[in-house]
Amino acid sequence: MAFNYPNGHSFNGKSFKQPRVSQGVSQSKRGMSLEADINAANSYYLTTGQAVIHKKPTPIRIVNVNYPARSAAKITEAYFSQASTTDYNGIYKGYYIDFDAKETSHKRSFPLNNIHDHQVKHLKAIAAQHGLAFMIIRFSVLKETYVVWADLIFQYWDNQATGRKSIPYETIVKSGELIEQRISPTTPYLAAVDKLLARREQKGDNLV
Amino acid sequence: MAFNYPNGHSFNGKSFKQPRVSQGVSQSKRGMSLEADINAANSYYLTTGQAVIHKKPTPIRIVNVNYPARSAAKITEAYFSQASTTDYNGIYKGYYIDFDAKETSHKRSFPLNNIHDHQVKHLKAIAAQHGLAFMIIRFSVLKETYVVWADLIFQYWDNQATGRKSIPYETIVKSGELIEQRISPTTPYLAAVDKLLARREQKGDNLV
Repeated sequence: MAFNYPNGHSFNGKSFKQPRVSQGVSQSKRGMSLEADINAANSYYLTTGQAVIHKKPTPIRIVNVNYPARSAAKITEAYFSQASTTDYNGIYKGYYIDFDAKETSHKRSFPLNNIHDHQVKHLKAIAAQHGLAFMIIRFSVLKETYVVWADLIFQYWDNQATGRKSIPYETIVKSGELIEQRISPTTPYLAAVDKLLARREQKGDNLV
Repeated sequence: MAFNYPNGHSFNGKSFKQPRVSQGVSQSKRGMSLEADINAANSYYLTTGQAVIHKKPTPIRIVNVNYPARSAAKITEAYFSQASTTDYNGIYKGYYIDFDAKETSHKRSFPLNNIHDHQVKHLKAIAAQHGLAFMIIRFSVLKETYVVWADLIFQYWDNQATGRKSIPYETIVKSGELIEQRISPTTPYLAAVDKLLARREQKGDNLV
Protein backbone atom coordinates (compact mmCIF):
# COMPACT_ATOMS: atom_id res chain seq x y z
CA MET A 1 0.00 0.00 0.00
CA ALA A 2 1.32 3.43 -0.99
CA PHE A 3 0.85 6.34 1.39
CA ASN A 4 1.99 9.89 1.73
CA TYR A 5 3.38 12.19 4.38
CA PRO A 6 1.05 15.02 5.48
CA ASN A 7 2.97 17.37 3.19
CA GLY A 8 2.02 15.18 0.20
CA HIS A 9 5.49 13.72 -0.41
CA SER A 10 5.40 9.98 -0.94
CA PHE A 11 6.90 7.72 1.69
CA ASN A 12 9.55 5.16 0.95
CA GLY A 13 12.00 3.28 3.17
CA LYS A 14 15.01 5.13 1.76
CA SER A 15 13.92 8.37 3.38
CA PHE A 16 15.07 7.01 6.72
CA LYS A 17 18.66 6.49 5.59
CA GLN A 18 21.22 8.84 7.05
CA PRO A 19 22.51 11.22 4.40
CA ARG A 20 25.94 10.20 3.21
CA VAL A 21 28.66 12.65 4.19
CA SER A 22 32.08 12.53 2.59
CA GLN A 23 35.02 12.12 4.97
CA GLY A 24 36.35 15.55 4.06
CA VAL A 25 33.18 17.38 5.00
CA SER A 26 32.88 15.39 8.19
CA GLN A 27 36.42 16.34 9.27
CA SER A 28 35.71 19.96 8.57
CA LYS A 29 32.45 19.89 10.53
CA ARG A 30 34.21 18.37 13.51
CA GLY A 31 36.77 21.16 13.37
CA MET A 32 34.08 23.82 13.24
CA SER A 33 32.28 22.29 16.16
CA LEU A 34 35.22 22.55 18.59
CA GLU A 35 35.88 26.06 17.31
CA ALA A 36 32.22 26.98 17.80
CA ASP A 37 32.31 25.54 21.33
CA ILE A 38 35.39 27.57 22.24
CA ASN A 39 33.98 30.74 20.71
CA ALA A 40 30.81 30.25 22.76
CA ALA A 41 32.88 29.79 25.92
CA ASN A 42 34.92 32.93 25.12
CA SER A 43 31.75 34.90 24.57
CA TYR A 44 30.44 33.70 27.95
CA TYR A 45 33.72 34.55 29.72
CA LEU A 46 33.73 38.02 28.14
CA THR A 47 30.12 38.76 29.09
CA THR A 48 30.59 37.60 32.67
CA GLY A 49 33.87 39.50 33.02
CA GLN A 50 35.93 36.38 33.74
CA ALA A 51 38.37 36.66 30.86
CA VAL A 52 39.00 38.39 27.55
CA ILE A 53 39.95 35.77 24.96
CA HIS A 54 39.40 36.04 21.21
CA LYS A 55 40.01 33.90 18.19
CA LYS A 56 42.31 35.66 15.76
CA PRO A 57 41.00 36.28 12.26
CA THR A 58 42.30 33.98 9.54
CA PRO A 59 45.28 35.67 7.88
CA ILE A 60 44.53 36.48 4.26
CA ARG A 61 46.73 38.00 1.57
CA ILE A 62 44.62 40.44 -0.43
CA VAL A 63 45.55 40.85 -4.11
CA ASN A 64 42.64 42.78 -5.56
CA VAL A 65 39.84 44.96 -4.16
CA ASN A 66 37.00 46.65 -6.02
CA TYR A 67 35.48 49.83 -4.67
CA PRO A 68 32.00 50.07 -6.18
CA ALA A 69 30.43 53.48 -5.69
CA ARG A 70 28.14 53.70 -2.66
CA SER A 71 28.73 50.15 -1.49
CA ALA A 72 31.24 48.22 0.56
CA ALA A 73 34.70 47.44 -0.78
CA LYS A 74 34.65 44.00 -2.38
CA ILE A 75 37.72 41.78 -2.27
CA THR A 76 37.85 39.95 -5.61
CA GLU A 77 41.15 38.13 -5.31
CA ALA A 78 42.78 36.92 -2.11
CA TYR A 79 44.56 33.86 -0.76
CA PHE A 80 44.84 32.18 2.60
CA SER A 81 48.25 32.84 4.09
CA GLN A 82 50.26 31.02 6.73
CA ALA A 83 49.57 32.06 10.31
CA SER A 84 52.59 32.76 12.50
CA THR A 85 50.85 32.25 15.81
CA THR A 86 48.13 30.15 17.42
CA ASP A 87 44.42 30.82 16.96
CA TYR A 88 43.52 32.05 20.45
CA ASN A 89 45.00 34.41 22.99
CA GLY A 90 43.89 36.73 25.72
CA ILE A 91 43.99 37.50 29.42
CA TYR A 92 42.64 35.47 32.34
CA LYS A 93 43.22 36.25 36.03
CA GLY A 94 46.04 38.56 34.98
CA TYR A 95 47.75 35.74 33.04
CA TYR A 96 48.50 36.05 29.36
CA ILE A 97 47.03 32.86 27.87
CA ASP A 98 47.67 31.41 24.44
CA PHE A 99 46.47 28.20 22.87
CA ASP A 100 45.33 26.24 19.87
CA ALA A 101 42.45 23.78 19.66
CA LYS A 102 42.75 20.47 17.84
CA GLU A 103 40.35 17.67 17.13
CA THR A 104 41.22 14.09 16.27
CA SER A 105 39.13 11.08 15.31
CA HIS A 106 41.82 8.77 16.72
CA LYS A 107 40.94 6.99 19.94
CA ARG A 108 44.27 5.75 21.25
CA SER A 109 46.52 8.74 20.64
CA PHE A 110 46.83 12.30 19.37
CA PRO A 111 48.94 12.36 16.17
CA LEU A 112 51.52 15.15 16.10
CA ASN A 113 50.78 15.85 12.45
CA ASN A 114 47.75 17.79 13.71
CA ILE A 115 50.21 20.43 14.85
CA HIS A 116 52.23 22.83 12.73
CA ASP A 117 55.81 23.88 13.33
CA HIS A 118 54.93 27.60 13.63
CA GLN A 119 52.41 26.80 16.37
CA VAL A 120 55.01 24.97 18.47
CA LYS A 121 57.53 27.75 17.89
CA HIS A 122 55.01 30.38 18.99
CA LEU A 123 53.93 28.44 22.09
CA LYS A 124 57.59 28.02 23.08
CA ALA A 125 58.11 31.78 22.81
CA ILE A 126 55.04 32.33 25.00
CA ALA A 127 56.19 29.80 27.60
CA ALA A 128 59.59 31.55 27.68
CA GLN A 129 57.78 34.80 28.54
CA HIS A 130 55.92 33.02 31.39
CA GLY A 131 52.58 33.06 29.65
CA LEU A 132 50.14 30.18 30.04
CA ALA A 133 50.69 28.15 26.88
CA PHE A 134 48.43 25.15 26.36
CA MET A 135 46.48 23.12 23.87
CA ILE A 136 42.88 21.97 23.82
CA ILE A 137 42.59 18.47 22.38
CA ARG A 138 39.29 16.84 21.54
CA PHE A 139 38.94 13.10 20.92
CA SER A 140 35.81 13.44 18.82
CA VAL A 141 34.82 9.76 18.83
CA LEU A 142 35.26 9.48 22.60
CA LYS A 143 33.54 12.86 23.06
CA GLU A 144 36.28 13.93 25.49
CA THR A 145 38.13 17.25 25.43
CA TYR A 146 41.32 17.93 27.42
CA VAL A 147 43.53 20.87 28.26
CA VAL A 148 47.25 20.03 28.35
CA TRP A 149 50.18 22.36 29.00
CA ALA A 150 52.17 23.08 25.87
CA ASP A 151 55.21 21.55 27.63
CA LEU A 152 53.73 18.11 27.06
CA ILE A 153 53.46 18.89 23.35
CA PHE A 154 57.08 20.14 23.29
CA GLN A 155 58.37 16.89 24.86
CA TYR A 156 56.83 14.75 22.13
CA TRP A 157 57.37 17.26 19.33
CA ASP A 158 61.11 17.60 20.00
CA ASN A 159 61.60 13.82 20.10
CA GLN A 160 59.46 12.79 17.14
CA ALA A 161 62.48 12.27 14.83
CA THR A 162 63.63 9.35 16.97
CA GLY A 163 60.58 8.70 19.12
CA ARG A 164 56.87 8.20 18.49
CA LYS A 165 54.83 10.54 16.31
CA SER A 166 51.81 10.77 18.56
CA ILE A 167 50.94 11.40 22.20
CA PRO A 168 49.25 8.40 23.84
CA TYR A 169 45.67 8.95 24.99
CA GLU A 170 46.60 7.74 28.50
CA THR A 171 49.34 10.38 28.76
CA ILE A 172 46.89 13.14 27.84
CA VAL A 173 44.37 11.85 30.40
CA LYS A 174 47.07 11.75 33.10
CA SER A 175 48.93 15.00 32.31
CA GLY A 176 45.92 16.99 31.18
CA GLU A 177 42.59 17.97 32.67
CA LEU A 178 39.27 16.89 31.22
CA ILE A 179 36.91 19.73 30.31
CA GLU A 180 33.66 18.82 32.01
CA GLN A 181 30.82 19.38 29.54
CA ARG A 182 28.03 21.69 30.67
CA ILE A 183 24.81 23.00 29.14
CA SER A 184 25.98 26.52 28.38
CA PRO A 185 28.74 27.05 27.57
CA THR A 186 29.27 23.40 26.65
CA THR A 187 33.05 23.60 26.91
CA PRO A 188 34.10 25.73 29.90
CA TYR A 189 37.78 25.11 29.37
CA LEU A 190 39.02 27.68 31.91
CA ALA A 191 37.77 25.39 34.71
CA ALA A 192 40.25 22.79 33.42
CA VAL A 193 42.98 25.46 33.24
CA ASP A 194 42.24 26.29 36.89
CA LYS A 195 42.77 22.64 37.83
CA LEU A 196 46.07 22.53 35.95
CA LEU A 197 47.17 25.71 37.74
CA ALA A 198 46.20 24.22 41.12
CA ARG A 199 48.20 21.06 40.36
CA ARG A 200 51.19 23.15 39.35
CA GLU A 201 51.05 25.10 42.61
CA GLN A 202 50.72 21.93 44.69
CA LYS A 203 53.68 20.32 43.00
CA GLY A 204 55.58 23.57 43.02
CA ASP A 205 56.74 22.81 39.51
CA ASN A 206 57.13 25.44 36.84
CA LEU A 207 55.62 23.49 33.99
CA VAL A 208 54.25 26.58 32.31
CA MET B 1 70.38 79.19 -19.06
CA ALA B 2 69.10 75.65 -19.49
CA PHE B 3 71.00 72.83 -17.84
CA ASN B 4 70.51 69.17 -17.10
CA TYR B 5 70.84 66.77 -14.22
CA PRO B 6 73.64 64.17 -14.55
CA ASN B 7 71.02 61.65 -15.69
CA GLY B 8 70.16 63.88 -18.64
CA HIS B 9 66.78 65.06 -17.35
CA SER B 10 66.27 68.77 -17.73
CA PHE B 11 66.13 70.92 -14.65
CA ASN B 12 63.28 73.23 -13.88
CA GLY B 13 62.11 74.81 -10.69
CA LYS B 14 58.93 72.75 -10.57
CA SER B 15 60.88 69.55 -9.97
CA PHE B 16 61.46 70.69 -6.42
CA LYS B 17 57.77 70.81 -5.68
CA GLN B 18 56.49 68.10 -3.41
CA PRO B 19 54.34 65.66 -5.38
CA ARG B 20 50.67 66.25 -4.76
CA VAL B 21 49.05 63.48 -2.78
CA SER B 22 45.31 63.31 -2.27
CA GLN B 23 44.23 63.54 1.34
CA GLY B 24 42.91 59.97 1.28
CA VAL B 25 46.09 58.36 0.07
CA SER B 26 48.21 60.48 2.36
CA GLN B 27 46.17 59.40 5.41
CA SER B 28 46.51 55.80 4.41
CA LYS B 29 50.26 56.07 3.90
CA ARG B 30 50.70 57.68 7.27
CA GLY B 31 48.79 54.80 8.80
CA MET B 32 50.97 52.24 7.09
CA SER B 33 54.14 53.91 8.23
CA LEU B 34 53.33 53.75 11.96
CA GLU B 35 52.09 50.21 11.45
CA ALA B 36 55.32 49.29 9.66
CA ASP B 37 57.37 50.84 12.48
CA ILE B 38 55.50 48.87 15.13
CA ASN B 39 55.72 45.64 13.16
CA ALA B 40 59.50 46.17 12.87
CA ALA B 41 59.74 46.76 16.62
CA ASN B 42 57.66 43.61 17.31
CA SER B 43 59.89 41.58 15.05
CA TYR B 44 62.95 42.90 16.90
CA TYR B 45 61.42 42.14 20.31
CA LEU B 46 60.50 38.62 19.18
CA THR B 47 63.95 37.86 17.78
CA THR B 48 65.71 39.16 20.88
CA GLY B 49 63.34 37.29 23.21
CA GLN B 50 62.10 40.47 24.92
CA ALA B 51 58.42 40.12 24.11
CA VAL B 52 55.93 38.29 21.89
CA ILE B 53 53.59 40.82 20.31
CA HIS B 54 51.78 40.40 16.99
CA LYS B 55 49.44 42.46 14.89
CA LYS B 56 46.16 40.63 14.39
CA PRO B 57 45.12 39.87 10.82
CA THR B 58 42.40 42.06 9.33
CA PRO B 59 39.04 40.34 9.88
CA ILE B 60 37.46 39.37 6.58
CA ARG B 61 34.11 37.77 5.81
CA ILE B 62 34.62 35.23 3.06
CA VAL B 63 31.68 34.68 0.71
CA ASN B 64 33.12 32.64 -2.11
CA VAL B 65 36.22 30.50 -2.63
CA ASN B 66 37.40 28.69 -5.75
CA TYR B 67 39.47 25.55 -5.47
CA PRO B 68 41.33 25.21 -8.76
CA ALA B 69 42.93 21.77 -9.17
CA ARG B 70 46.59 21.64 -8.10
CA SER B 71 46.75 25.23 -6.97
CA ALA B 72 45.98 27.28 -3.92
CA ALA B 73 42.40 28.07 -2.94
CA LYS B 74 41.44 31.45 -4.37
CA ILE B 75 39.02 33.72 -2.53
CA THR B 76 36.89 35.41 -5.18
CA GLU B 77 34.42 37.29 -3.01
CA ALA B 78 35.02 38.65 0.46
CA TYR B 79 34.38 41.79 2.50
CA PHE B 80 36.15 43.61 5.27
CA SER B 81 34.34 43.08 8.55
CA GLN B 82 34.32 45.03 11.77
CA ALA B 83 37.05 44.13 14.27
CA SER B 84 35.95 43.55 17.86
CA THR B 85 39.34 44.15 19.44
CA THR B 86 42.45 46.26 19.02
CA ASP B 87 45.15 45.54 16.45
CA TYR B 88 47.98 44.43 18.73
CA ASN B 89 48.35 42.17 21.74
CA GLY B 90 50.90 39.92 23.33
CA ILE B 91 53.07 39.30 26.35
CA TYR B 92 55.88 41.41 27.81
CA LYS B 93 57.66 40.75 31.13
CA GLY B 94 54.81 38.45 32.07
CA TYR B 95 52.23 41.21 31.45
CA TYR B 96 49.42 40.79 28.97
CA ILE B 97 49.66 43.90 26.78
CA ASP B 98 47.06 45.24 24.39
CA PHE B 99 47.04 48.40 22.31
CA ASP B 100 46.11 50.23 19.16
CA ALA B 101 48.25 52.64 17.18
CA LYS B 102 46.88 55.90 15.79
CA GLU B 103 48.34 58.65 13.70
CA THR B 104 47.08 62.21 13.41
CA SER B 105 48.13 65.18 11.28
CA HIS B 106 46.81 67.55 13.95
CA LYS B 107 49.43 69.43 15.93
CA ARG B 108 47.55 70.76 18.94
CA SER B 109 45.42 67.75 19.92
CA PHE B 110 44.46 64.14 19.20
CA PRO B 111 40.86 64.00 17.91
CA LEU B 112 38.79 61.24 19.51
CA ASN B 113 37.18 60.41 16.16
CA ASN B 114 40.38 58.48 15.41
CA ILE B 115 39.13 55.91 17.90
CA HIS B 116 36.26 53.46 17.51
CA ASP B 117 33.79 52.47 20.17
CA HIS B 118 34.71 48.76 20.02
CA GLN B 119 38.36 49.62 20.65
CA VAL B 120 37.53 51.55 23.83
CA LYS B 121 35.21 48.78 24.97
CA HIS B 122 37.91 46.17 24.42
CA LEU B 123 40.62 48.20 26.18
CA LYS B 124 38.29 48.70 29.16
CA ALA B 125 37.74 44.94 29.38
CA ILE B 126 41.52 44.43 29.29
CA ALA B 127 42.14 47.06 31.98
CA ALA B 128 39.48 45.35 34.16
CA GLN B 129 41.49 42.10 33.85
CA HIS B 130 44.67 43.96 34.94
CA GLY B 131 46.30 43.82 31.54
CA LEU B 132 48.45 46.69 30.30
CA ALA B 133 46.08 48.62 28.03
CA PHE B 134 47.54 51.57 26.17
CA MET B 135 47.57 53.51 22.94
CA ILE B 136 50.41 54.61 20.69
CA ILE B 137 49.72 58.05 19.26
CA ARG B 138 51.84 59.62 16.55
CA PHE B 139 51.71 63.32 15.71
CA SER B 140 52.93 62.89 12.16
CA VAL B 141 53.67 66.56 11.45
CA LEU B 142 55.58 66.96 14.71
CA LYS B 143 57.29 63.60 14.16
CA GLU B 144 56.58 62.64 17.78
CA THR B 145 55.11 59.34 18.96
CA TYR B 146 53.78 58.76 22.49
CA VAL B 147 52.55 55.86 24.59
CA VAL B 148 49.62 56.74 26.87
CA TRP B 149 47.70 54.48 29.24
CA ALA B 150 44.23 53.66 27.97
CA ASP B 151 42.85 55.29 31.14
CA LEU B 152 43.66 58.70 29.68
CA ILE B 153 41.64 57.79 26.59
CA PHE B 154 38.73 56.59 28.76
CA GLN B 155 38.62 59.90 30.68
CA TYR B 156 38.18 61.93 27.51
CA TRP B 157 36.07 59.33 25.69
CA ASP B 158 33.51 59.05 28.48
CA ASN B 159 33.13 62.83 28.72
CA GLN B 160 33.04 63.75 25.04
CA ALA B 161 29.25 64.24 24.97
CA THR B 162 29.58 67.23 27.30
CA GLY B 163 33.32 67.90 27.15
CA ARG B 164 35.90 68.33 24.40
CA LYS B 165 36.22 65.89 21.50
CA SER B 166 39.98 65.70 21.49
CA ILE B 167 42.87 65.19 23.90
CA PRO B 168 45.17 68.23 24.08
CA TYR B 169 48.73 67.70 22.87
CA GLU B 170 50.09 69.01 26.18
CA THR B 171 48.08 66.43 28.12
CA ILE B 172 49.52 63.61 26.02
CA VAL B 173 53.05 64.96 26.49
CA LYS B 174 52.52 65.18 30.25
CA SER B 175 50.60 61.93 30.86
CA GLY B 176 52.35 59.86 28.23
CA GLU B 177 55.91 58.91 27.44
CA LEU B 178 57.68 59.91 24.24
CA ILE B 179 59.04 56.98 22.21
CA GLU B 180 62.66 57.93 21.56
CA GLN B 181 63.41 57.25 17.92
CA ARG B 182 66.37 54.97 17.21
CA ILE B 183 68.04 53.57 14.11
CA SER B 184 66.67 50.04 14.32
CA PRO B 185 64.01 49.50 15.34
CA THR B 186 62.98 53.12 14.80
CA THR B 187 60.12 52.98 17.29
CA PRO B 188 61.12 50.96 20.39
CA TYR B 189 57.84 51.60 22.17
CA LEU B 190 58.42 49.14 25.02
CA ALA B 191 61.07 51.49 26.43
CA ALA B 192 58.29 54.09 26.80
CA VAL B 193 56.04 51.44 28.39
CA ASP B 194 58.85 50.73 30.88
CA LYS B 195 58.94 54.42 31.83
CA LEU B 196 55.17 54.50 32.32
CA LEU B 197 55.40 51.40 34.51
CA ALA B 198 58.18 52.99 36.57
CA ARG B 199 56.10 56.15 37.06
CA ARG B 200 53.12 54.08 38.12
CA GLU B 201 55.23 52.25 40.71
CA GLN B 202 56.73 55.49 42.06
CA LYS B 203 53.35 57.10 42.45
CA GLY B 204 51.84 53.90 43.75
CA ASP B 205 48.83 54.56 41.58
CA ASN B 206 46.92 51.85 39.79
CA LEU B 207 46.35 53.66 36.55
CA VAL B 208 46.46 50.48 34.49
